[in-house]
Amino acid sequence: MADNMLPTINAERIWQRHLEMAQIGATPGGGVHRLALTSQDIAAHRLLAEWAEARGFAVEIDAMGNMFIRRPGSDPALAPVASGSHTDTQPNGGRFDGIFGVLAAFEALEAVDDAGLTTRHPLEAIVWNNEEGARFVPGCSGSAVYTGAMALDDMLDCRDRDGVTMRACVDDLRAALPAAGVRELGRPLAGFVEAHIEQGPELEANGNTIGVVGGMQGNRRFHVDVTGEDAHSGTTPRAGRKDAFVAATDMAVALREVFWDDEDVVRFTIGQFDVLPGAKSVVPGKASFTIDFRHPSAETLQELGDRVGPVCTAHAGPCHVETHEISSAVPVDFPKPMVSRIAAAAERRGFASQPIYSGAGHDARYLAETCPAGMVFIPCWRGISHNEAERAEPSDIAAGAQVISDVLVELAELP
Amino acid sequence: MADNMLPTINAERIWQRHLEMAQIGATPGGGVHRLALTSQDIAAHRLLAEWAEARGFAVEIDAMGNMFIRRPGSDPALAPVASGSHTDTQPNGGRFDGIFGVLAAFEALEAVDDAGLTTRHPLEAIVWNNEEGARFVPGCSGSAVYTGAMALDDMLDCRDRDGVTMRACVDDLRAALPAAGVRELGRPLAGFVEAHIEQGPELEANGNTIGVVGGMQGNRRFHVDVTGEDAHSGTTPRAGRKDAFVAATDMAVALREVFWDDEDVVRFTIGQFDVLPGAKSVVPGKASFTIDFRHPSAETLQELGDRVGPVCTAHAGPCHVETHEISSAVPVDFPKPMVSRIAAAAERRGFASQPIYSGAGHDARYLAETCPAGMVFIPCWRGISHNEAERAEPSDIAAGAQVISDVLVELAELP
Repeated sequence: MADNMLPTINAERIWQRHLEMAQIGATPGGGVHRLALTSQDIAAHRLLAEWAEARGFAVEIDAMGNMFIRRPGSDPALAPVASGSHTDTQPNGGRFDGIFGVLAAFEALEAVDDAGLTTRHPLEAIVWNNEEGARFVPGCSGSAVYTGAMALDDMLDCRDRDGVTMRACVDDLRAALPAAGVRELGRPLAGFVEAHIEQGPELEANGNTIGVVGGMQGNRRFHVDVTGEDAHSGTTPRAGRKDAFVAATDMAVALREVFWDDEDVVRFTIGQFDVLPGAKSVVPGKASFTIDFRHPSAETLQELGDRVGPVCTAHAGPCHVETHEISSAVPVDFPKPMVSRIAAAAERRGFASQPIYSGAGHDARYLAETCPAGMVFIPCWRGISHNEAERAEPSDIAAGAQVISDVLVELAELP
Repeated sequence: MADNMLPTINAERIWQRHLEMAQIGATPGGGVHRLALTSQDIAAHRLLAEWAEARGFAVEIDAMGNMFIRRPGSDPALAPVASGSHTDTQPNGGRFDGIFGVLAAFEALEAVDDAGLTTRHPLEAIVWNNEEGARFVPGCSGSAVYTGAMALDDMLDCRDRDGVTMRACVDDLRAALPAAGVRELGRPLAGFVEAHIEQGPELEANGNTIGVVGGMQGNRRFHVDVTGEDAHSGTTPRAGRKDAFVAATDMAVALREVFWDDEDVVRFTIGQFDVLPGAKSVVPGKASFTIDFRHPSAETLQELGDRVGPVCTAHAGPCHVETHEISSAVPVDFPKPMVSRIAAAAERRGFASQPIYSGAGHDARYLAETCPAGMVFIPCWRGISHNEAERAEPSDIAAGAQVISDVLVELAELP
């Protein structure tokens, strides 16, 4: 296909769709609180399905709650070429994380449809379930189950903090979309490209519009439980205390030192930290916290991550500590031909681009294990994400969606 | 009155009353969860009122939700001599903290009644409202309002975490006890003695049964709010973070060092500690914690407590911190004649006793400002309190109640 045959996306339409989606789970602070398969998230799925149905695109849901919107190709024997991301957010998260990748994929299908183009491969826009991992642990479980990296039943048995299972949530989704077809898990894709806001500061700092993602750092996540003994804060001498908060803060400070690197490449975060019983005049008998550790090097992930348990034990004082690794992911390198194709697409359109490495995990991680996969980043204001203040510019959103559309159309013409 | 005229308490009865009370708000772990003026706490008030009515004792409630059970004296012009404590507990607290002092006071009234004794002063058993401060802040607000140390309307306007006011709770109490009379706030008492478990290890370690309490340490409580910025844990470099958890742990560790004393007299506790938004992959933009600091010396309370703000500010890093003092109480010394009277009562009964200092705050603190007041401690197992495992021996409970009964009867014969 000649370059001048590539459809042009509708910049105004994709921006309006962002504004409309941002109303579902909108927070007073200007963000979005839309945890996976809550009524808000299901409403986002429904809205997307309505848009798809208005276009005559097929909608399917698989057993893990992933949603697929398909525009057929000329050769029904060929696997779909796909793009997509997620509709769920972090608690009080932003208006672009995830949903941009979904709307860019959907815009690509609409742009191709508007152009009246017939592609060889079918095109698909996909919503992967539970990417954030904020409601059900671990995250990216939709794409992981679809690609076979996690077991379906294990993930359906997951419960949120209120005891609700993922299985019940997937049933809710299906009930809310009775017209949706059933998609088999693991149906091969011919290729997958995911658009996402960078969630970091590089593109903005360099004045670039498109990040051509070469790979994704790996991660290891841990849960630490500290058990001491509840005691009266006014009467119990320090020497007689088993203060779980004191032990947990000693662990946190020691871990911070162990994970310190001068290059500032290590990403080490304690994001959840709870003490019990949580009363002013009670020495806390329990504390628990999570560790999120990410790095581009598999060796560093192994070596540093393995120190979590021993460091916690060394700083437990009179308390007892147990550490559990709750999830992990190896670093990913996207295939060179896909990376080059994305870079070329950006250049053709005149978008300033740069190679970039993903600090965050994304569904493309699991897709990369089963098909040629890649990612396209656009800038986000000050790199702020997982935050109500998250912001992306309409022109960057349009540029990202255009690159996705161009790459999908190219891939869809391959044999 | 001759010593052999002093009534003997009923050891079996007071123990059974403890077991019965422990069923109201019983936890699976063997403790009691009975926050102030919840339905459980109101049920405890009702049970006590039923026992009082069966005896023909008058029951009254004041505007602050304190409950008074009175056995009349021969001279109606004389102020009551009183004992009592509280029925509320810490979250998942124990079976003896507070309720022992209430049941010892009630047992004293029953023992006098069984003996057919007519005292000059009326005798009262009192349940002070909201001693623990676990539901409504600050604690001891019942006795504080009764004695004029806190303003009634301020305390009635207090709200629990669900937004329920103390005013509504006091209305609930009165509705549950329609036969109770109305007690005016601040009606003078001729004396007040409070029985309590020690909540510390000294009596048990020394093999003593009765602690003759000479005074009570003072306290200062603070709330610390740390504000940073939510950020993505996978993409935000350490140098670009405003991690409120990191800042708060640095403050906690620095405060622990500042408050460290070789003599282990300082009581410094961080009992509540929260991070927001509290998600594994979000750098926390907010953290807040409480500080409970107690000491017998008013000077040390002043000097060390005043360092909380500067130490927090010095360790805030890139975050913003605000510290607020939420309550304070000066140390109390009980009057020597009362202390001597308690010691003499224990000796007469042959109970091994010792002078002791109270690490915890109690309602007797506020009573001491308006009448001769004192306290009687009994041992508790390993000093464990504010804990489901809290335990006291039936023989110690009987001994403590006997001392309370003897002291009340003596005080009730004074002019």
